[in-house]
Amino acid sequence: MSGERLIYLPLGGAGEIGMNAYVYGYGPKGKERLILVDLGVAFPDMDTSPGVDLILPDIGWLAENVDRLEAIFITHAHEDHIGALAHLWPQLKKPVYARRFTATIGRLKFEEAGLPKDALHVVEPRPQVVEAGPFKVQFVPVSHSIPESAALVIDTPAGRIVHSGDFKRDATPVVGEGWDDAVMEGIAAERPVKALMCDSTNVFSLHEGRSETTIQEPIRDLIRSASGMVVATTFASNVARLKTLAEAARAADRSVCLLGRAMKRMVTAAEEAGVLQGFPRTITPEEAVEVPRRNLMLIVTGSQGERRAASAQLSRGKYLGLEMKEGDMFLFSSKTIPGNERDVLRVVNAFSEMGVDIVDDQGGKYHVSGHANRPDLEHAHRLFLPDMLIPMHGEHRHLREHVRIAHEAGIAGAIVTNGTMIDISGDAPKVVDHIETGRTYLDGTALVGAMDGVIRDRIRMALNGRAMVTVILDEQDEPLGEAWVELSGLAATGLGGRPLAETMEADLTEFLDGAGKKLLADDDKLDEALRRIVRQVAMEEIGKKPEVTVVISRLSAE
Amino acid sequence: MSGERLIYLPLGGAGEIGMNAYVYGYGPKGKERLILVDLGVAFPDMDTSPGVDLILPDIGWLAENVDRLEAIFITHAHEDHIGALAHLWPQLKKPVYARRFTATIGRLKFEEAGLPKDALHVVEPRPQVVEAGPFKVQFVPVSHSIPESAALVIDTPAGRIVHSGDFKRDATPVVGEGWDDAVMEGIAAERPVKALMCDSTNVFSLHEGRSETTIQEPIRDLIRSASGMVVATTFASNVARLKTLAEAARAADRSVCLLGRAMKRMVTAAEEAGVLQGFPRTITPEEAVEVPRRNLMLIVTGSQGERRAASAQLSRGKYLGLEMKEGDMFLFSSKTIPGNERDVLRVVNAFSEMGVDIVDDQGGKYHVSGHANRPDLEHAHRLFLPDMLIPMHGEHRHLREHVRIAHEAGIAGAIVTNGTMIDISGDAPKVVDHIETGRTYLDGTALVGAMDGVIRDRIRMALNGRAMVTVILDEQDEPLGEAWVELSGLAATGLGGRPLAETMEADLTEFLDGAGKKLLADDDKLDEALRRIVRQVAMEEIGKKPEVTVVISRLSAE
Repeated sequence: MSGERLIYLPLGGAGEIGMNAYVYGYGPKGKERLILVDLGVAFPDMDTSPGVDLILPDIGWLAENVDRLEAIFITHAHEDHIGALAHLWPQLKKPVYARRFTATIGRLKFEEAGLPKDALHVVEPRPQVVEAGPFKVQFVPVSHSIPESAALVIDTPAGRIVHSGDFKRDATPVVGEGWDDAVMEGIAAERPVKALMCDSTNVFSLHEGRSETTIQEPIRDLIRSASGMVVATTFASNVARLKTLAEAARAADRSVCLLGRAMKRMVTAAEEAGVLQGFPRTITPEEAVEVPRRNLMLIVTGSQGERRAASAQLSRGKYLGLEMKEGDMFLFSSKTIPGNERDVLRVVNAFSEMGVDIVDDQGGKYHVSGHANRPDLEHAHRLFLPDMLIPMHGEHRHLREHVRIAHEAGIAGAIVTNGTMIDISGDAPKVVDHIETGRTYLDGTALVGAMDGVIRDRIRMALNGRAMVTVILDEQDEPLGEAWVELSGLAATGLGGRPLAETMEADLTEFLDGAGKKLLADDDKLDEALRRIVRQVAMEEIGKKPEVTVVISRLSAE
Repeated sequence: MSGERLIYLPLGGAGEIGMNAYVYGYGPKGKERLILVDLGVAFPDMDTSPGVDLILPDIGWLAENVDRLEAIFITHAHEDHIGALAHLWPQLKKPVYARRFTATIGRLKFEEAGLPKDALHVVEPRPQVVEAGPFKVQFVPVSHSIPESAALVIDTPAGRIVHSGDFKRDATPVVGEGWDDAVMEGIAAERPVKALMCDSTNVFSLHEGRSETTIQEPIRDLIRSASGMVVATTFASNVARLKTLAEAARAADRSVCLLGRAMKRMVTAAEEAGVLQGFPRTITPEEAVEVPRRNLMLIVTGSQGERRAASAQLSRGKYLGLEMKEGDMFLFSSKTIPGNERDVLRVVNAFSEMGVDIVDDQGGKYHVSGHANRPDLEHAHRLFLPDMLIPMHGEHRHLREHVRIAHEAGIAGAIVTNGTMIDISGDAPKVVDHIETGRTYLDGTALVGAMDGVIRDRIRMALNGRAMVTVILDEQDEPLGEAWVELSGLAATGLGGRPLAETMEADLTEFLDGAGKKLLADDDKLDEALRRIVRQVAMEEIGKKPEVTVVISRLSAE
């Protein structure tokens, strides 16, 4: 077996929260057979990725080595784990394995993208084993905030790996199987765990995590106390929470209406996959309009203040005939993800203007996280007793803290970020390579590399505005007519109220009139000179240096 | 006195946190003499105001009625209260009154802007009175997070108003005068308070506020425990915190170096104004380089992750010869303002990559807020016993909650947002007018109205990208040469790898070749037709509809 090695290479999700994509390999150096665990997206923001629809991991390396790839495993159906699958699968075309609910969601995505649904295979929990080259993979149910989340037990000739996926330690998660200490101990007892790749999201949360069941009563009491219409939001995929909310509504004699495409899709998928039973009957928005407000509860998308989601639509007025009014209640049964604060507060303040009472999670009363907190992570370390711990699913600060904790417990650990290939064949992780990784933007229907300059140009236009200069030269390189300037995203007037474009045009025309033949004949130099004038005028007149496009048209003798 | 009325009109700061500007008026309807309290800025963000330098209140109404304006009062030197003064004063040109430290900061701004410094007048605390038309105004020291913050006691023939300014209830604020219950009771005893205009920032913080002194010992202990270099950040204007940090450094045998222009400016201003004594001697960055790491502490700007501030500079590598290393400590003696999370975390993760230990405020151990929490607000209500409470300095949700609390205590109250003019002559506030207000952007050196479309164009370019089309027509309206397309912020290639610009040019040229004389002669219709083609091609090829600029050049017979 000498010369064979076991490698681990995150392509996304390690050093960030989002777009998870982890590669494992086993075999001779450079010829390892590979599997991919998860293929998720991250979400764009105006600061770094304006106009972008989704952020996908750059899987260039994997695509180049696709002949070595055996299979793809998806731990659960959250977008940051499955969201890129339909977009990038055409570059990989390998079988995809997942549990039933996850596969259901995946197949919906494949269907929409016109991809073969039979590429997705349903796997039952351990003891079922998927063989993929030198890898033997089992799905182990874990509790999280979506049905049928799984950890993976990955057996290789070099040892056993546990890939935690996203998990929390909840024995009573309302929907689906709970976390089971005995199962985890059994895994470690069966074969020692060489490496635990472990969720790090909540490593800074110092208290023990609480079960999904702990919020059932507070939510029930809250909804019972309401007198007007109640609207609640949470992540659509948190089917357990949807159930808790809907049951609380029924207990308060309220009909339940689900608003938002994702919400209905998730409930349907969960019912189809058989993970959700006894969800209260829901009514349509048309029916809801006819129900007295104190007998109605809406469960809506948009817990993060997303502009097009149902909550934001309601905050702007009537939506599907429904409208919030003074005395209604809006419940955020959710936490604001860092970076979304402004969007959420926009919605909150809009509801405040309507006289709606807003109830937030109140420090955990109406929301619990789906990730293991620090004591729970430490507990998991003790259950699996791995030789080494490699934290994943975290920003650098999370990974660093998670390794620190492992070291304190005497476990070898390493911070392995996207693009770092480590060899875990030995007793401790060893960095063996650095792979070029990064982000690919789904922009409309195009895939754009983060380094292509497309997004950089957008950001520059947004920061600096844009000026477009058109100049026409005749067959003798003489200016024909005057320079023309169009401005976009720039103050229209400069000092003393002069129109900025006219000031630029005057300076450009004056320059052209005085320019020598040689300069006028040289596209590059002329472009540069005109650009400089535009920027200089803008600087003087409005104190900004815009982006400039110069179009020089030359009439050729026909 | 009949026919005279007392009015209140917020132009900024009511319904948002930032750009405070409050107008009071007294006199016959429409002829009230006016005073302005505060003239602050808000800070731009990429989502709503890309490229903008500062956001100023729209003072159009006040400028139109400037002949009725008597004076401007500035409660304290935070940017959201004084930041717009130098930019907008040229439209007002009225005397400005402030306490010494505030006036010092104001004069620095006037000096930089080339405005007359003698427009700023130093006012001593009550009992000194400034007479401004029918108003008699006194400054009352309150504790906050900047030296010499003041509430205003505004006496009018219709009654006494207390304008709280930003305040907390801290009897021992380390620098400057503490909050004094007896003083406040004295104000109410002297003359009943008709209306209390009150800070609402922390109305959702349910515990009683803590004194600045409570963090001195934890900070001292923390810094004493550090082995490498310590770097701490807080708001530059929080002079008390700077003192606490510097003294903790000295107690741990560390030299103190201030990094960041604002930091040094504030300490100097505080010393000049006589509010800061005994600040430890500081060393320069050049000197700091020579000091052993364990004997050095830097106090730096950039608690909100601002890209150009010292903390962000250090997170990117060497700054002024100084560099963070493994084992150093970085202390955020500050809270992240909602909306700044991403910027702060970018800095945190960069430090994490360097192996720096990051310490945040840890739920208040190393930071206390400068605003009154709910119990402190309720306490202030009881001290002043106003007939009515008008909350300010808050988003709508804060104002609403603050009014709710007032009502619970039996005090009349109203949510009065920017642009709402209320008459407070009677027993309860009465809305009498709505004034057009909004935001003015300082963009480079230009003032741009929020509704001018300039920023909207920038956002659209950032979201959609931009295409520029150039077409030349001859004297007979015949196309001369082919259409030319320049793209910016758009994927370069469409379906099947075809260059997007070329596909557009081909379609445009084909269209022009087949277009009728009438269309070719009509600029507007031709522009519209070409624009439609470009957007259609983009939609087909890359799934996006870009912003389009069409330049049609017509050669005229000479």
